[in-house]
Amino acid sequence: MAASVRVLGVDPGLTRCGVGVVDIAHRTPSLVHVEVLRSDAGEPIEQRLLRIARGVEAAIDAHRPDAIALERVFAQANLRSVMGVAQISGIVLRAAAERQIPIALLTPTEVKASVTGYGAADKRQVGEMVRRLLRLEAAPKPADAADALAIAIAEGWRARVPGGGAAAVTATPAQRAWAAAEAAAKSGRLRR
Amino acid sequence: MAASVRVLGVDPGLTRCGVGVVDIAHRTPSLVHVEVLRSDAGEPIEQRLLRIARGVEAAIDAHRPDAIALERVFAQANLRSVMGVAQISGIVLRAAAERQIPIALLTPTEVKASVTGYGAADKRQVGEMVRRLLRLEAAPKPADAADALAIAIAEGWRARVPGGGAAAVTATPAQRAWAAAEAAAKSGRLRR
Repeated sequence: MAASVRVLGVDPGLTRCGVGVVDIAHRTPSLVHVEVLRSDAGEPIEQRLLRIARGVEAAIDAHRPDAIALERVFAQANLRSVMGVAQISGIVLRAAAERQIPIALLTPTEVKASVTGYGAADKRQVGEMVRRLLRLEAAPKPADAADALAIAIAEGWRARVPGGGAAAVTATPAQRAWAAAEAAAKSGRLRR
Repeated sequence: MAASVRVLGVDPGLTRCGVGVVDIAHRTPSLVHVEVLRSDAGEPIEQRLLRIARGVEAAIDAHRPDAIALERVFAQANLRSVMGVAQISGIVLRAAAERQIPIALLTPTEVKASVTGYGAADKRQVGEMVRRLLRLEAAPKPADAADALAIAIAEGWRARVPGGGAAAVTATPAQRAWAAAEAAAKSGRLRR
């Protein structure tokens, strides 16, 4: 078993795009890097996309993650904002494929359930859990930074612990509850 | 005035992505290149995006257009297909910005009105008009190919003839009607 796995998480967005990198060893995540890329709504869309794309690619090339995880886009009230998110997602997916780095798409619910044990957790709860898991003094700000780290942690756990094996050793109660629920769901699926 | 302008049009899509290149001299467009890039729905999304991205970028680098034009994405019935289109659009917008080539977003209605004189024209009418304008024996197939060429022609006309000046010389009746309507709309806007 490799000593640790490095995951880069992206909370995609055109105005603010969170990028977080964590190393995960025996289910314990450690902060490697976090930043929020920004572009100005007054700039032409192609310049905004180029700016964010270059920032994400620079982070990938600087930190060389074993895996990339991206929040999956869903329909939202604001179609314009969905379009920007989808455009950034396309660029990140392509960047991963080009570098032959595996990329996973996680739903917001999967991410929240994984890090807090509760799929409908709010931003504050996610931020607080990310703070605790990474042993930080304060929750990363803005929320996009915490979200990117949460996505990276969720993917690191998901990819590393398919049967929930290592979870029992170092997991918090919330994580144990989630791992158990996940394992139950999986074995249920297999039985059917 | 430059002798001619070269425009590359993209009808973005994940399953089929039309790419068409035309040279426009004194409002007369000539076919330079047309192709339809494809990706297999069975492939992972990141591989599909990479395949289409590389195809579009290869066409840009081979034909070195003065401008790129892209069909603007709108909400459609099928959210999954909108997402794929938005992801491709993001990649094309970024590719243009990276190469410092101006890129324009045109609505389907603008494109149809420009090439056929009728904003609600159907695919067959657009194909037939593209065939006539480019003096081809048959309309380019599939429709994505004709659409990409229509987008390129519309942008070439839009960018070159801001006041409708050259239009009167070589335009078809439909094009003259459109140029007149456009000029009227513009002068109306200026007067207000």
